[in-house]
Amino acid sequence: MLIKEKIKQATSLLREFDLDCWLTFARETSINGDPVLPFLVTGDLTWHSSFIVGRDGRTKAIVGRYDKQMVVDTGAYDDVEAFVTGFREPLLAYLKAMNPRTIAVNFSEGSEICDGLTHGMFLTLQKALADIGMADRLVSAERLVSALRERKSAVEIGYMKEAIRHTQEIYAMVGRFIAPGRTEKEIADDMYAEVVRRGLTTAWGRDTCPAVYTGPDTAQAHYNPTGRVVERGHILNMDFGVRVENYCSDMQRTWYILREGETAAPNDVQRGFETLVRSIEAARKAMKPGVPGLDIDAVCRGIVTGAGYEEFPHALGHQVGRFPHDGTALLGPAWEKYAQKPFRLLEPGMVFTIEPRLTVPGKGIATIEEMVVVTETGADWLSTPQTELILIRG
Amino acid sequence: MLIKEKIKQATSLLREFDLDCWLTFARETSINGDPVLPFLVTGDLTWHSSFIVGRDGRTKAIVGRYDKQMVVDTGAYDDVEAFVTGFREPLLAYLKAMNPRTIAVNFSEGSEICDGLTHGMFLTLQKALADIGMADRLVSAERLVSALRERKSAVEIGYMKEAIRHTQEIYAMVGRFIAPGRTEKEIADDMYAEVVRRGLTTAWGRDTCPAVYTGPDTAQAHYNPTGRVVERGHILNMDFGVRVENYCSDMQRTWYILREGETAAPNDVQRGFETLVRSIEAARKAMKPGVPGLDIDAVCRGIVTGAGYEEFPHALGHQVGRFPHDGTALLGPAWEKYAQKPFRLLEPGMVFTIEPRLTVPGKGIATIEEMVVVTETGADWLSTPQTELILIRG
Repeated sequence: MLIKEKIKQATSLLREFDLDCWLTFARETSINGDPVLPFLVTGDLTWHSSFIVGRDGRTKAIVGRYDKQMVVDTGAYDDVEAFVTGFREPLLAYLKAMNPRTIAVNFSEGSEICDGLTHGMFLTLQKALADIGMADRLVSAERLVSALRERKSAVEIGYMKEAIRHTQEIYAMVGRFIAPGRTEKEIADDMYAEVVRRGLTTAWGRDTCPAVYTGPDTAQAHYNPTGRVVERGHILNMDFGVRVENYCSDMQRTWYILREGETAAPNDVQRGFETLVRSIEAARKAMKPGVPGLDIDAVCRGIVTGAGYEEFPHALGHQVGRFPHDGTALLGPAWEKYAQKPFRLLEPGMVFTIEPRLTVPGKGIATIEEMVVVTETGADWLSTPQTELILIRG
Repeated sequence: MLIKEKIKQATSLLREFDLDCWLTFARETSINGDPVLPFLVTGDLTWHSSFIVGRDGRTKAIVGRYDKQMVVDTGAYDDVEAFVTGFREPLLAYLKAMNPRTIAVNFSEGSEICDGLTHGMFLTLQKALADIGMADRLVSAERLVSALRERKSAVEIGYMKEAIRHTQEIYAMVGRFIAPGRTEKEIADDMYAEVVRRGLTTAWGRDTCPAVYTGPDTAQAHYNPTGRVVERGHILNMDFGVRVENYCSDMQRTWYILREGETAAPNDVQRGFETLVRSIEAARKAMKPGVPGLDIDAVCRGIVTGAGYEEFPHALGHQVGRFPHDGTALLGPAWEKYAQKPFRLLEPGMVFTIEPRLTVPGKGIATIEEMVVVTETGADWLSTPQTELILIRG
């Protein structure tokens, strides 16, 4: 189903971007898998495998003999050809007959999600194509692969909504797991037990999903829960997501642990939290098709720094899909490591996180990460936004 | 532990292959991971990350800010430098000061396990190095990465022995699961339940591990167990392995389902089975350091075809490690798709499968897959070889 839908989408993208054919070329995919493969085939491939979609909608697969039946079973290819000794002869014969002006392959400097072709495989392909005078027809498939992942279908959005629902339900239980004296690791283990109970898997590696950070002086992000103990007066934040049908959620939430006698968070904590909420809503409202992600990042970043906080050392938001970070267009600043991503324009069907953060000195890090989908006219919430700081009574 | 051991080994390999430095360059490794990364770091990396090992043994990592602590925790790097906006400045400064004649990076046409660098990342690196006049110093790290994976330590061999022990114990239970009228899928599910009961995971994707093929007219290999029913007079074979500490086993075994009144397999089945046993032992005896894998494949293939069977349409054996197919040197014929692999010489510490197959017309496919380790003088069994056809009474 997904494979047929995506191959049909690829055909119309070839026309949109004026490309003649799209070639995915991969081998031993359990070792070096191209991230686009789940859109083309259901299992792992052993030998040099070629999946070719033409502008006219014709589809061809050329794979090793023992991988053939699995590819035939997808029902997505007009022809599946098997080889025993090598891929060159069948691939070159097919391309020679097709004679495409451009052969788009999966490499990209600026977008990791479109960069599944290894350098060795690129060289192998280039040399083979040189034999039929087509080596100079290789071009990057970045725009096609980006659009294929980014313009999500109703079915894909449905899976993500379901992942978000589970994430929010599990977050709603967490108040019970947080208490002074408990460690980050104990809290994370309780949450993970609930993930397992629901028959789900985490959106990223279990070591850092959920990630739990309590108080000041944590590793801040991307680090496993430690033996650090929750204390009264701490801000505690979490980063967590699950997978439904391989589609991910990715959300952060913030709690405050009341000191004895406190009935509300202190002003500095409350002000930090409210700054985040306000900056997220401003970012969402600024989102619509045709706007570069750069501008959305600037709106949110400006509110945070304008309120006197240090700027967050990362992009405001990334796309989500089959990976927690999935897509090219980014709500981010024009930093070297983001290449052209922040300059890409928003399109309907893109699913983004919005995740500013700020430090409340001596208390901890406040973070909120919401998820939104770009529509024809703006951006809608996919998550139910956190608008109140959750207070834990010690 | 593993990381420190492998980085030490890499330093001596730089000297052996006369290379000045080894650079692993990766980003968003949950999307496009380099298969060498578990030897360098314990978790996933988000931004452009560089791991540099010098011939003098100095080690340096340059990673995004939020990935730093995880890399520091390995204790394997003399220095871990973190960046926020981009990798270029710190990487170029380090390489400029080091001034290596050669910078070995992970690409290879002939060996997928050494081909973790994507083409987009290669271009990114090449352009960055051009700015300091070092673009032409990039060379393939294939030999280094191959040796790092192939020359296994006693600890690595120990994990694999443990995986083989479990595999053999589970295979020994299978006689109870096979019976006329049962489906391939039912048998596979019973085996998988035992894998779970032991707290293990399968060596490759659960869909095809175990793989079960009964009778003639199956997909033969790499295909999931089906609703096909075991019948009397069938040959049944399985391909199966588990992981221990991320190191794999990979073994095949063959059964025969007796017809009513039979007390032994018919002559054609028995003769096929014995041909496999004989050809495997001949291959193992021919193995020793300095011999190309090509010769070993020819010894075994010649015995099978000499006995009148069609030749098997795959290599005789591959290396095993952290993946079921792991390593460059291959016991295989000189077919295009195997590139230079069959010409590589055997070395002590390499772990290979030996897995010929043949068809017994009208009955099914007989396969045996054993595992051996190359020693200083020959090759020792790691698995306990199957020397008798296992008979199932219906």
